[in-house]
This record gives sequence, structure tokens and C-alpha cells, in this order.
Amino acid sequence: MITRPTLLLDKQKCLANISTMVNKAKKAGVVLRPHFKTHQSHEIGRWFREIGIDRITCSSLSMANYFAEDGWSDITIAFPVNVLEIETINKLAAKVKLNLLVETVEAVELISGKLTSKINLFIKIDAGYGRTGIDYMNLKKIDNVIEAISRHDYLNFSGFLEHAGHSYNARGQEEIMKVHFETLENMATLKARYMQAFPEPAISIGDTPTCSVAEDFGAADEIRPGNFVFYDLMQEQIGACDYEQIAVAMACPVVALHPERNEIVVYGGGVHFSKDRIVNNGKTVFGKVVENNGAGWGDFIEDTYVKSLSQEHGIIKATDSFLKRKKIGDIVKILPVHSCMAADLMDGYLTTDGEWLEKRVNSLS
Amino acid sequence: MITRPTLLLDKQKCLANISTMVNKAKKAGVVLRPHFKTHQSHEIGRWFREIGIDRITCSSLSMANYFAEDGWSDITIAFPVNVLEIETINKLAAKVKLNLLVETVEAVELISGKLTSKINLFIKIDAGYGRTGIDYMNLKKIDNVIEAISRHDYLNFSGFLEHAGHSYNARGQEEIMKVHFETLENMATLKARYMQAFPEPAISIGDTPTCSVAEDFGAADEIRPGNFVFYDLMQEQIGACDYEQIAVAMACPVVALHPERNEIVVYGGGVHFSKDRIVNNGKTVFGKVVENNGAGWGDFIEDTYVKSLSQEHGIIKATDSFLKRKKIGDIVKILPVHSCMAADLMDGYLTTDGEWLEKRVNSLS
Repeated sequence: MITRPTLLLDKQKCLANISTMVNKAKKAGVVLRPHFKTHQSHEIGRWFREIGIDRITCSSLSMANYFAEDGWSDITIAFPVNVLEIETINKLAAKVKLNLLVETVEAVELISGKLTSKINLFIKIDAGYGRTGIDYMNLKKIDNVIEAISRHDYLNFSGFLEHAGHSYNARGQEEIMKVHFETLENMATLKARYMQAFPEPAISIGDTPTCSVAEDFGAADEIRPGNFVFYDLMQEQIGACDYEQIAVAMACPVVALHPERNEIVVYGGGVHFSKDRIVNNGKTVFGKVVENNGAGWGDFIEDTYVKSLSQEHGIIKATDSFLKRKKIGDIVKILPVHSCMAADLMDGYLTTDGEWLEKRVNSLS
Repeated sequence: MITRPTLLLDKQKCLANISTMVNKAKKAGVVLRPHFKTHQSHEIGRWFREIGIDRITCSSLSMANYFAEDGWSDITIAFPVNVLEIETINKLAAKVKLNLLVETVEAVELISGKLTSKINLFIKIDAGYGRTGIDYMNLKKIDNVIEAISRHDYLNFSGFLEHAGHSYNARGQEEIMKVHFETLENMATLKARYMQAFPEPAISIGDTPTCSVAEDFGAADEIRPGNFVFYDLMQEQIGACDYEQIAVAMACPVVALHPERNEIVVYGGGVHFSKDRIVNNGKTVFGKVVENNGAGWGDFIEDTYVKSLSQEHGIIKATDSFLKRKKIGDIVKILPVHSCMAADLMDGYLTTDGEWLEKRVNSLS
């Protein structure tokens, strides 16, 4: 019985999301190296393994350790290498094929002398997002980093990696595809430039919006989407998924009703959902309420959404008819704005089949 | 040595914040029942105990359990009672003096028949904030709830509790005091109305802005601020503290530098800071950078702040001169926007004296 905020997982939807992406990658002839920062769960990781996935992406060394413990042996940390964690890098690289990201000669020099195992380095490329990486046109800088890598026996240059995070600003498939084509074009230029010197400079791209919408990945050898495993309201707003594909919902107990202002107070706040938000029809939305449907959920309830979050409270703006159906002690189910962040805060998943799936509970563990 | 995002705690500042509030409450003749949701740490709780505090506030039953384990025996859950957790309520009420909040006859009826130990009930009053509680003027509803409480042997009516959360919208001491006076006036009306029937209906108020600025608490018997133990940028913006009183800072490794756009990328993202933000001079700010000062920190670095957060990345907008001083592998120290939310995400505190303080790591544990 649900008594506290609980993250529900519809396993069928989740498996369908996984299989759609696996099949798409197969058809397009690219490797799928899914980002596991979204689910952070051994159990869900195994669902990928069972369908043939053997390479994964993580966003921190501690997350990589967690998955290495469950037998994953080829892990990319899609984050500029944190040189202060050299000890953890060495320990992990002794056990698994570890692929790290660099974007400066400095970072290469800082780790190279301290390595005790071989690691693979991708050069982080900025193909338009503008968050991290070397501008794809800055060949001089790229040459310098490759040259620095080649000076060290324990370092292997693996290719170029980018993340088109600006696809999150897109609205609709046309805008998503614009980001996708631009990214591919830029990465293709790079691949052509380095093909002679390095017969196989792998091109790794990937974000959930472009990977969800595109069917062709051009010059890319590998895609790394993560969020698609669950999707969420943000992806639905971008146009990367339909709401029926969203595989997680937060179940929250009703603790107070305020019909005089069309509000319901639930136990479920910023420490469960995170404070990520979207703007929908001019309103700030922290989650959308869906119909209770047995152990799962159904359609959106029109005009019924989380309007604000405190540490533990969620305030739902609700229609009269929804309010009339609810009472203290009921459970309200809410689709999260950003499933990666909500999942990160929770200690596991309750599947709609009643199974409890553990996950990594703290970002630093 | 710091290698990953680490929440630093300046124990001297923290102890000073505690002692200021304890002395203020003593002088004003009110009980200080601090909210422990901010620090969520046994160790820091003991600092309060050592200075004479013996009553605390929590925001969930699981948090109350955590503190009961460390010997706290008089705990108020400042959250509308979640009737689904009746088993936990019974277990906890058998061990400690448990004070819960109700705002409807329905909630009283839902728990009363299932209680196996005595509990104290406060009626949650809305004295102006508009989030939860009975409107302070709705005497009929209040009478009904009191009447429902009086029908049950295991229930004891303790008084009225409010939280003036709208003080967070105030800017400057004058606006904070306006909220404070209005709240006190409304609560005084209520106290006068019920004084004859109930010789001691305790009036419990409290939020960090008003408790930080006010010296007099009028009709209130008890104050429940929490954030003051650390303070943060939000409190500084409201005018509840000076930046010198902020007792926590996040230490984040530098992983990339982008002088061409005046940006520094640090390991430290939404899973460490939370996504709480303030708007400062028209800019959205997720944290402000301070000088490194040995194990602690010094002044703000002008025009150098966290402009965006991804799951694990923080992007700092920095001045030329700050950028020139930083290199990959350095530690940047950042004051958080909302210390309660940042602390909730972290697994402990590193004091500037080098001591590690554990805390409760997951909101649901």
C-alpha cells in the first residue's frame, strides 16, 4: 500500500521505450550506448542487457562504479574528466573499459602521469550547444589535444563526443531535426578531417529529443540518449514523445483540500520531484495530474497540475470536478516535468505490477 | 582532500546563528522549536541540544523518526497529517511526545479511531500565506475541528500553528515586518477568541525571515524557524541575513574553462544544489561564487555566479580576472540559493575545521 510519495514505473511502457530505441539504432547501424543517469537502477540496467546492450554512459565516476558492480564493463563518463578523482579512475579502469572526456591539453597532462591502467579518451566537441567542449571548427585546439593524448602509452584516442543539449529548446519535430542535421553536419566535417590520420575516430552523439525523432544518424557511430527510458513532460513539450510513452508517475497522498481556491495539497515536494518546471499556456507547471487507473494511470486530467512545490508540499491547481472526486488520504498520480531529476531523488521504483526496484539513492554514494 | 562536490559548513557561523536565535527567543519569552528539515543531521541537532533546546520541528514522519533515534522526545510535524501513515504515527507516538497538524474534521476522524497512543493536535491556521490551513477568520470551521478533537480520548487539542511563508516574497526588513505584524495580529485575534474555553491554546508561528528580523513575537508562544541555521542567498536577498551569516558553501571541482565566453564548468549540478534560483539584477542565479579562503571562504567574487545547472554540471559566469586565476582541478566555492534543498541532496557536511558530519541522506529513508 502506498503511504508516502512513491515513484511508479510502468514496466511495459519502459520496455517499449527501450526496445524502440534499440531497434532504431540497429536499423540505423549505430551503437546504442544508453545514458544510465536517468534510471540509476541495476534492475532497469538489466532490461537493457537482456536486449543486447553491452555499453553504457554514466555522468559521474560514482555512478559508473555502481554499474560496474553489476557487471557493466564498457562505460563512458559523458562529463569532462574530473582530474581530482584520479584514484577512482585508476581503480575503475583496472576493472572495466573506461572512456573519459577531455577538451584541453591541460586535463590530458594532469591525468596522464598518474594513470596505472589504460583509458580511452574522447574529445568533447561543441557542435552548437555551447555548454562544454572544443568548438568543432577549432582544429588547432583539437590537434593539440590529440597530440597530447598520443604522447602517453596509457591513453588511447577514441574519437569525438558531443551532446546537442540545445535540442531541449526545440519545440516540435521540425526544430528538433534542425538541431540534429546541424550537429551531424558539423560532426561529419570533423570525421572527414581526421579520417586519414585515425582510421576510426568514433563519433558519439546523443540526446533524447534528436534520438527520439531522427531515424538516420549520418556520420555518427554511436548514440547516447538516456531520458527516453522514462520520458517526461519536458520531452512531451519538446515533441520527443507522446504522453502515453511517459513511463513514470509520482503517487502522492492528499493531505488537504481547498475547494475555495481550487487547490489540493499533496505530500510530494521539491525533495521528491526536484524544482524543474515547464511553462505551459503561460502557467508554470511542476507536474501534471493523470487519472488513477488501478496500479497504473490513465489520461491527463484537464487543467489539473502542480502549480508550486515547497520542500515536502505540492500544491495542485484542480478543476471543480476533480476536486469533488478527491478526499484526504487519496492518492493523486502526477507525471513529472523531468524524470531524471525526480528519479535521482527517490530510493526506488514501484512497478505497476507491484514489484519494488531498488536504485542508487544518493548522487555521491 | 576535496575531490567531488562537497557541502562545506562553517561551524562557527552556524553556532553563532543558533545562539542568536536561542537568545532572541529567550529574551522575547517564546519557546524556540527549531525546524530540523534544513540540516537533517544528528550532530547539528546536538549543537541545539547543548544550548538548551529540547523541542523540535520536522517536515515528515520519517525525518521525525531519524531525530527520535537520537533522543529527541518532543517533535512537531509541521505538515498536514498524512492519514495513510497511521502505523508510523502510532509507533512514533509510543516513544515521543508527538504533535501533529490538522485542518479538517475529516482528518481528525480518519486517524482518531486507529490511534494506540496519545497525540497532540495543532490546528493549522492560514494567517495570510494561502498554502494550507483554515482561514483564521473561519471560526465555524475551527470550532468544528476542535469539537471533533475533543470527542477522542487519544487526542489533545494543543493550539494553533501557522507558517507565514509569504515572508519569502518580502524584500527588506520593512516588508518582512509587515508580514510579521499582520500574522501576529491575526493569531492574537484567534488566541483571544479561544482563551476562555482553552486556558492555553499555544500559538506557534515561524519562518526564518520574520524570526530573523523581529524581536517581539506578540501573541505567539513558540517560534519554528529552520533555515536560519545555515541561511542562504534567498534569505540574503529577502533581507533576513547578511552574507557573512551564510554558513554553508558548495565546493566544486573545475572541469573546464571557456574564457571566450567567460564561463567555467564545474562538477556540481542540480543533483547537488537543487534547481532553486533567484533573480538578481535581472539575471537568473543558481549560486554565487566566493573567494577561496583556506578551508573556508571569503567575500563574494563580483559578477561571478552560477548561471545554469544541468544534472551534474554547473556553468559559472565569471569575470576575466577570476577566470585568469582558475585552472582545471581547482576548487570553486559557491553559496547556495536554498540551503535546505541543497543540504537535502548531500550526504553530509565537511566542516571548515575538517570534521565530517553525517546526515540523513534520503528524504524517504
